[in-house]
Amino acid sequence: MENKVLVETSARHIHVTEETLKVLFGEGAQLTVKKMLSQPGQFASEQKVELVGPKKSIANVSILGPCRKSDQVEISATDARTLGVEIAVRESGDIKGTPGIKLVGPCGEVVLEEGVIVAKRHIHATPEDAERLGVKDKEIVSVAIKNDYRSLIFGDVVVRVSPSFQLAMHIDTDESNAGLVGNVYGEIVK
Amino acid sequence: MENKVLVETSARHIHVTEETLKVLFGEGAQLTVKKMLSQPGQFASEQKVELVGPKKSIANVSILGPCRKSDQVEISATDARTLGVEIAVRESGDIKGTPGIKLVGPCGEVVLEEGVIVAKRHIHATPEDAERLGVKDKEIVSVAIKNDYRSLIFGDVVVRVSPSFQLAMHIDTDESNAGLVGNVYGEIVK
Repeated sequence: MENKVLVETSARHIHVTEETLKVLFGEGAQLTVKKMLSQPGQFASEQKVELVGPKKSIANVSILGPCRKSDQVEISATDARTLGVEIAVRESGDIKGTPGIKLVGPCGEVVLEEGVIVAKRHIHATPEDAERLGVKDKEIVSVAIKNDYRSLIFGDVVVRVSPSFQLAMHIDTDESNAGLVGNVYGEIVK
Repeated sequence: MENKVLVETSARHIHVTEETLKVLFGEGAQLTVKKMLSQPGQFASEQKVELVGPKKSIANVSILGPCRKSDQVEISATDARTLGVEIAVRESGDIKGTPGIKLVGPCGEVVLEEGVIVAKRHIHATPEDAERLGVKDKEIVSVAIKNDYRSLIFGDVVVRVSPSFQLAMHIDTDESNAGLVGNVYGEIVK
């Protein structure tokens, strides 16, 4: 099991600032927990927004909590085509020069100038996990997914190491569907 | 270039029998060519239908021509989740026990009892291509896609050999988006 990592599929979601939350959901609004996620302290909230792109809209997109220092919209490449925005494959936080979009909530709208990314596939690991797996922060690895139908090896998987993480690989819905992954274990290969 | 193959993305589409075409588009209806495809004689027609699943519908789905001996609906796993049908990863033609769906055309509806597949990724090759590439009909190979963002290696790629084919690998939109493939060359690895 030394090179195995749980692969989780991230559905489209957004992160918002306190300010954006206030505009979308009204003064004094709070994110309420719908479901805790694997990364410590992170949760899917019950608050949902509509993404309005130049081509089409996508409704019922979950906000993940808690609030952050900047707004960020994480979608699949399929979603990007639906919305009509460019595909920017980026690590979380690296939003400079990415497309913008309009967020619509029950109490108001926010137009983001940038922040729409297709998340680069990545592994969250603690320093202890990283040592055990023989990987380093920012290292690019490959991860093999084995099944009877759509086995594949994901390249360009970036490792991110922090004591606040829990070991998990995150891919988006396109990647999950390309490998019919569900929640399975992948094998790190270099 | 001995192990290179052009990778093409198949958007969702359907194949219909003469009978189904008649019900959907009326007596005497013909498929008219919108765009010829890479496989000799095959074309995207101007005729479009709506797929009505138990959960949602997807409109404007192209019929590929010419007509065939059985109806078949080829969608991505993302589409299957949208429509609310089971994901059946199958080779074209292998539809026994797959989900059904309702097709709606301008003149009528057809309820298919089966025929909805998520196409197994595959390579079309002539006998000459197969010899040159060192592969055989029905062989399962892997194909590596290299780029700067989402490199990956597709496993479970079935080779299909026929003199009527033209060399090309076909993947669906999920697989394409997972590797941001566009029309690129993949490299066969065994």
